[in-house]
Amino acid sequence: MPVIEAHVLEGYSEEERQRLARALTDAACLVIPAAPDAVTVMIRENPKANYMRGGKTRAPAPARPDPCEQIRAYLAAMEARDMHTARSMLADGFVMNFPAAPGLTALEELIAWAAPRYRFVKKTYDQFEAFQKDRVTVIYAMGTLYGEWPNGAPFEDIRFIDRFEMTDGKITRQDVWNDMAETKAQLT
Amino acid sequence: MPVIEAHVLEGYSEEERQRLARALTDAACLVIPAAPDAVTVMIRENPKANYMRGGKTRAPAPARPDPCEQIRAYLAAMEARDMHTARSMLADGFVMNFPAAPGLTALEELIAWAAPRYRFVKKTYDQFEAFQKDRVTVIYAMGTLYGEWPNGAPFEDIRFIDRFEMTDGKITRQDVWNDMAETKAQLT
Amino acid sequence: MPVIEAHVLEGYSEEERQRLARALTDAACLVIPAAPDAVTVMIRENPKANYMRGGKTRAPAPARPDPCEQIRAYLAAMEARDMHTARSMLADGFVMNFPAAPGLTALEELIAWAAPRYRFVKKTYDQFEAFQKDRVTVIYAMGTLYGEWPNGAPFEDIRFIDRFEMTDGKITRQDVWNDMAETKAQLT
Amino acid sequence: MPVIEAHVLEGYSEEERQRLARALTDAACLVIPAAPDAVTVMIRENPKANYMRGGKTRAPAPARPDPCEQIRAYLAAMEARDMHTARSMLADGFVMNFPAAPGLTALEELIAWAAPRYRFVKKTYDQFEAFQKDRVTVIYAMGTLYGEWPNGAPFEDIRFIDRFEMTDGKITRQDVWNDMAETKAQLT
Amino acid sequence: MPVIEAHVLEGYSEEERQRLARALTDAACLVIPAAPDAVTVMIRENPKANYMRGGKTRAPAPARPDPCEQIRAYLAAMEARDMHTARSMLADGFVMNFPAAPGLTALEELIAWAAPRYRFVKKTYDQFEAFQKDRVTVIYAMGTLYGEWPNGAPFEDIRFIDRFEMTDGKITRQDVWNDMAETKAQLT
Amino acid sequence: MPVIEAHVLEGYSEEERQRLARALTDAACLVIPAAPDAVTVMIRENPKANYMRGGKTRAPAPARPDPCEQIRAYLAAMEARDMHTARSMLADGFVMNFPAAPGLTALEELIAWAAPRYRFVKKTYDQFEAFQKDRVTVIYAMGTLYGEWPNGAPFEDIRFIDRFEMTDGKITRQDVWNDMAETKAQLT
Repeated sequence: MPVIEAHVLEGYSEEERQRLARALTDAACLVIPAAPDAVTVMIRENPKANYMRGGKTRAPAPARPDPCEQIRAYLAAMEARDMHTARSMLADGFVMNFPAAPGLTALEELIAWAAPRYRFVKKTYDQFEAFQKDRVTVIYAMGTLYGEWPNGAPFEDIRFIDRFEMTDGKITRQDVWNDMAETKAQLT
Repeated sequence: MPVIEAHVLEGYSEEERQRLARALTDAACLVIPAAPDAVTVMIRENPKANYMRGGKTRAPAPARPDPCEQIRAYLAAMEARDMHTARSMLADGFVMNFPAAPGLTALEELIAWAAPRYRFVKKTYDQFEAFQKDRVTVIYAMGTLYGEWPNGAPFEDIRFIDRFEMTDGKITRQDVWNDMAETKAQLT
Repeated sequence: MPVIEAHVLEGYSEEERQRLARALTDAACLVIPAAPDAVTVMIRENPKANYMRGGKTRAPAPARPDPCEQIRAYLAAMEARDMHTARSMLADGFVMNFPAAPGLTALEELIAWAAPRYRFVKKTYDQFEAFQKDRVTVIYAMGTLYGEWPNGAPFEDIRFIDRFEMTDGKITRQDVWNDMAETKAQLT
Repeated sequence: MPVIEAHVLEGYSEEERQRLARALTDAACLVIPAAPDAVTVMIRENPKANYMRGGKTRAPAPARPDPCEQIRAYLAAMEARDMHTARSMLADGFVMNFPAAPGLTALEELIAWAAPRYRFVKKTYDQFEAFQKDRVTVIYAMGTLYGEWPNGAPFEDIRFIDRFEMTDGKITRQDVWNDMAETKAQLT
Repeated sequence: MPVIEAHVLEGYSEEERQRLARALTDAACLVIPAAPDAVTVMIRENPKANYMRGGKTRAPAPARPDPCEQIRAYLAAMEARDMHTARSMLADGFVMNFPAAPGLTALEELIAWAAPRYRFVKKTYDQFEAFQKDRVTVIYAMGTLYGEWPNGAPFEDIRFIDRFEMTDGKITRQDVWNDMAETKAQLT
Repeated sequence: MPVIEAHVLEGYSEEERQRLARALTDAACLVIPAAPDAVTVMIRENPKANYMRGGKTRAPAPARPDPCEQIRAYLAAMEARDMHTARSMLADGFVMNFPAAPGLTALEELIAWAAPRYRFVKKTYDQFEAFQKDRVTVIYAMGTLYGEWPNGAPFEDIRFIDRFEMTDGKITRQDVWNDMAETKAQLT
């Protein structure tokens, strides 16, 4: 135990059903420390015609894309300075909090903030993590930064963590922490 | 839809069952963007005598304590320099990664690392987040730091985020990011 | 087959659960002509704490009273000219259709309509029938009328059928058919 | 809640399964006044080979035709004086109760009864209603009559209601009420 | 997998429910060679009021006693020559087949058959086995015999196996095989 | 009642699913003496992608072959002295117990034991029975023997019963009882 049955409308891909099964397994294990082999999840698919809520058949809501992949794509667009793509992924009211730069709302502000700090920066990812909190999907990306200081000297292996919130498939918030200032302080 | 049935052994408290129900709701919503009212979770309790795996009855594994509460207690013990309590919550092989201080393994190392950095530091929490990844519980604590610099000057409102990993109820890893260096750099 | 499982919140009385089980049995047999012994209904009660919709626990909606009993009470109140009780059972917008008297909306209109037709009339019931149509409960009452014509002569055994609609426990509509005119025509 | 699962043998058409799902929804709402969106019905189809009762597989009983459609066809046959078709839909022991004509058993009796009453009559239907009572399907047809009096004068808009009982697909009983006598009385 | 849910009426003792769960586990393993820990059985108890078949509530059939215990009691009664008790456990039409003695129907015949074969015989049981075949419970008892030959010489360790059939709680048939003749032949 | 749902991975043949359904029916009836028509078994097949245990999908274990057929084949191979086929069906540690010949481990020993007892022997089967006991499948074969005594005289109609144990598809044990010695004793 636990044994979990999840009844869903037919129409989700195998990858989506397995994502669901894994999420439910993790959810169960968050509360019940069962031996892993003792956690059973069964996805039951209902043909659309065999399901009614309130006397009406319902179309299955398309599955959310993998939020980690969405954030990876956003960060890649930012790194490539592809503002058009990046902006298309943002919700109205999007806000960013960077070290010593709270409350940025436009990607251009972020670029202005970054200008005196480094010539360029790129990310190496250690891992992405995503989970749901009521209506909000929270995604963490973490790893290390490499790039060049304004004077052209290279840097690397600077730890960072980004936290994102998404609602209805759009990014509403980004919070960034990293060791850039720490590293720079040690250089001087 | 989805409709989720979770069969568990009898013996979990109402609080534990509701924690489970919420975790399952969130897990479903991570993949399927159903309207909130359309996500149904039903916990089914099985008396111990009515459940067999492999022809044997099983005792219910005690529910995990709320991992956010566990981390809050650990951080409180650290803040109070109650090393005995803090250490009791750590797994063998525990490792900490702080800004410019990777791979610490003993709390004493952390205290030594902190000594030249501030007289004291305390945390104000904005939120805790926890989720499960296979066998590992991941917990995030975030908020702001306040305290005194070595010269006695106060600081406050410095953003931080701590990431913890727990296995079998013990903390195995802590990663810390914050804006202390950034703030200090701006002071000078 | 069919085998029907109905999951409900805990809190319904045995009488209410059996009313539900019978209604589900009848619903199944309306479509599938299974041998009666082959129709299985199982009511599953969920403690309130074990059920969440949209991440929230829900209180069980109190069961509807037996609609046949409600209509019987209404008709008894009308027969006793207890207008206060009868009126309390009517929804706003209540409308009555009697032979040659469509669209009455006030009980006083009905009494005025009846005045030249009989001194009094009482009902003997053969049966009541109730079923649900989406949001509306439909109730039929049928049997025979007895009473006195305006000239004091008695009558009896005059067939009638009343059809009622109820929404949210209030009567919204009444339609009446009977053989009074037919009987009177044969008298003359 | 309620959440209703109905396990049936594979082989019912989509229209039949939806008829079943709607009937179960209505049955639940007859007793439990849940918000419509809170009533979930899931039809589970079992391949014949996956179901055994008493150790034997079973063939699915063919679904009943829509009883409202059956009665509509019967009334159409009667209106067209297609006695052959109408009679084929009657059970042995069929009985009719018309105004001032109880206990007719042969369609010819009905025609004889009607002869002095009108030259012809046709029905305009407002609605049909059907529900199950144990082994009996009850069907109501209601609307208005139009046609010609014996003297050739036309009539219309005369309310009627017919109640039918069917068992095993055959009509066993018909009860008719209408305002013909009332209307005729007002003419004179 | 497999995961087995058995819905039964409330009223069975814990011992009976566990006997059922074990029998279902064994039944599953007879066909599917799952790892033992992968076979889950859940007994669901339905309060009598929450179950209807054919629109009627049902009383739970009292569980069968453990058939191995019943046969053990029968054999003990026979060994003690308690014919009254033994006979009370037999169905009408009971028949016994012993070595070279087919078709005995009365316990007295068995005693007469045994008279020239041994002074007395007693059983040491190695094991009992029981399983169901449609309406018939089959029970095997096996072990060794000890006792005295007609000449008073002792014997022991003679293998035997008894096969019983029970229907509706009564023994309908007994078949006995053993090595008595083989042993006796070796003596001479 | 009982109503039994068995969730299995997709991939079992219709014959295998029905074998499972019958075994579950019998298991239920071993404990609960329900009327046969009141025992419902539903096999639910889960596509491999819709089932996870411990967060991993699982391949369905191939169903066991019918153990009665396996034993029938073994006995046929022995009768035909096809030692190669017979031996391939035996587990390491296989042991046989024959009348006055306990603890044989090699088929050759059996042949040596049989040599002085009969020229040849063949089996006519009345029935096979199989059931599961934890990890062990028990199979009974019973019927009558016919053949020739060493002196060439024929014999027939000698009752026998063989009991087999199988684990993981291999025979681990055979116990044999019959009336040969009894019959021979009566000849002399």
